Amino acid sequence: MSFKFEVVHKDNNTAARTGRISTAHGVLETPVFMPVATRGAVKTLTPEELEGIGAEIVLGNAYHLYLRPGTELIKRAGGLHNFMNWQKPILTDSGGFQIFSLSETLKVTDEGVEFRSVYDGSSHFLSPEKVIEVQQILGADIIMVLDECPPYSAGKKQVEEAVNRSLDWAKRCKASFSTGKDQALFGIVQGGVFRDLRKRSAEETVEIDFPGYGIGGFSVGEPHEIMFEALNETIPYLPFAKPRYLMGVGNPTSLLEVVRQGIDMFDCALPTRIARNGAAFTSKGRLNIRNARHKADLEPLDENCGCYVCKSYSRSYLRHLFMLGEILAHRLLTLHNLAFLFDLMRRARKAIVEDNFEDFRRDFVDNHDS
Amino acid sequence: MSFKFEVVHKDNNTAARTGRISTAHGVLETPVFMPVATRGAVKTLTPEELEGIGAEIVLGNAYHLYLRPGTELIKRAGGLHNFMNWQKPILTDSGGFQIFSLSETLKVTDEGVEFRSVYDGSSHFLSPEKVIEVQQILGADIIMVLDECPPYSAGKKQVEEAVNRSLDWAKRCKASFSTGKDQALFGIVQGGVFRDLRKRSAEETVEIDFPGYGIGGFSVGEPHEIMFEALNETIPYLPFAKPRYLMGVGNPTSLLEVVRQGIDMFDCALPTRIARNGAAFTSKGRLNIRNARHKADLEPLDENCGCYVCKSYSRSYLRHLFMLGEILAHRLLTLHNLAFLFDLMRRARKAIVEDNFEDFRRDFVDNHDS
Repeated sequence: MSFKFEVVHKDNNTAARTGRISTAHGVLETPVFMPVATRGAVKTLTPEELEGIGAEIVLGNAYHLYLRPGTELIKRAGGLHNFMNWQKPILTDSGGFQIFSLSETLKVTDEGVEFRSVYDGSSHFLSPEKVIEVQQILGADIIMVLDECPPYSAGKKQVEEAVNRSLDWAKRCKASFSTGKDQALFGIVQGGVFRDLRKRSAEETVEIDFPGYGIGGFSVGEPHEIMFEALNETIPYLPFAKPRYLMGVGNPTSLLEVVRQGIDMFDCALPTRIARNGAAFTSKGRLNIRNARHKADLEPLDENCGCYVCKSYSRSYLRHLFMLGEILAHRLLTLHNLAFLFDLMRRARKAIVEDNFEDFRRDFVDNHDS
Repeated sequence: MSFKFEVVHKDNNTAARTGRISTAHGVLETPVFMPVATRGAVKTLTPEELEGIGAEIVLGNAYHLYLRPGTELIKRAGGLHNFMNWQKPILTDSGGFQIFSLSETLKVTDEGVEFRSVYDGSSHFLSPEKVIEVQQILGADIIMVLDECPPYSAGKKQVEEAVNRSLDWAKRCKASFSTGKDQALFGIVQGGVFRDLRKRSAEETVEIDFPGYGIGGFSVGEPHEIMFEALNETIPYLPFAKPRYLMGVGNPTSLLEVVRQGIDMFDCALPTRIARNGAAFTSKGRLNIRNARHKADLEPLDENCGCYVCKSYSRSYLRHLFMLGEILAHRLLTLHNLAFLFDLMRRARKAIVEDNFEDFRRDFVDNHDS
């Protein structure tokens, strides 16, 4: 089945909407949180566990997979789905963000980007065409154009150049994209925190015409409020009937805020990354299991959570394992954090369908400490 | 249900036998490999996964759990089974081996052992009585006496003193052990590599009368052959009708060798420890996933293994994850290694019942490189 998106229900009082994305590897209900499997695995978890907690799609990264283990091997393994043993939908990011944020030396021309590998310092050149070729070999259901991602510190002139170059690259990506492979190619809107640039980037990316649109260049260090405002200037210029994917956001209250603005998809390393540091999402805010007050605490991570971890383990046990460096702690916190976000999305979708999203969001935020 | 052991079938041609141990938390089929959950978790794995691959019992360690998180908390959590969410049988080692091998400064008297914590250097004193008290609070189904474990380098005089002290401690352990708690207390035979000491330790420990016997003081650096010989001098002095537990052995070919000699139970950190270094048991010998020849190797770890890992992942994928430090690799290798040993034990039990154990063992060893 080829790619298809439909809006199922729009909330009466906000821009939030539920939708359905159909792909060759199955259907996703939106708004959807997409856990990152950057290098071909969601950190610490198996595909079966992810499915068990309601993951509908995972996110690979073309930059990382191109460097390690390389496209040749993944091609021989029958594509990324087979290589990593995940038969539900996959989205691959082109790696624009990684090329620009991980490379110490980097040469950007209109032709493409020359950079050094984060793994071994070897030199590589990726053009828009090459990035599409890589992603078509990986075989994800949704793939992304190559974009230039300036840092938050960039001035307006630099951001404008990045917008122009990203538009040019988006056209070349589309031109080189072979549509015969049940994949959908999404465009990416840039423009930093500059309203006029966001507007122009959105309008001209939409003009190229993609089946869905990523919104990039956020979560690069700017305050949340600045992002929400700039997003507000971007979304109205995106077509209602196409999915909108905000790249790199995963904080629970931010997720609900951007769902309210009409975002359908998001990804973030946050739930897996904070787990590594002992932090867990809860309905009352973030909890850190290292805190001494959990030493003899026989409560679950979150009394309102029905996930396997909360049904089976006390904070004291998780703290015990975490303090001793037992990997099982990292794994159980990751599992809980993802289950928490998937459940939050389920409840958000339900609230949208009931035209009750803003009350739901306010309740959640009011109970939240952080 | 209180503790019970029965020999089910003795092999016609060797001393190998199958048996059944009944405990308050369920029944185990012997010979049984017991994975170590030293600090309350089998490294990287959940209880459900362990059950899924056929784990029948896990091994906690009183020394570690007494120090972290302490018996008070585990008591409040309702015992070790509840704390770690494992409702099948548990055996706890007294920690004699750990006290003697992990402590840099240590004072042994007839009264007990004074040692410093491996975690924070704090000073502790454990007597035979205290070790029983700790293990009765932890609530394992099988608990062990406190024994003195001399190193492999110890001379005969030192080993003899350790035998004498261990016998004295064994009596005191038994005297202070409260039988009302559905627990079984096992004695431990010491004696190093000295045949006469092994014989005397076995005979006098049996005289004290326990429902089962550990054989300690091996796997401390001696060559395998030396252990097999000393074991041969020990087993004949243990009663046929009681379970025999060889402490600290987990190498597949060694397991089969000691099963042949009539051992019923064993534990070892080996399968979890080597997984951390990238090593996997296979029917052809040990494989290291870091080896460059597995880079593009689309075969499973072991083509003869039916475990989840071998059914789902290629060596190339596991190598990819391992080389990048992805925890999932460590976890999948651990899962495979344990599944491999559980399967080996299932096949060993079957061969014993069919009076065919020695052929089975020889076949396995002949196909084995290492």
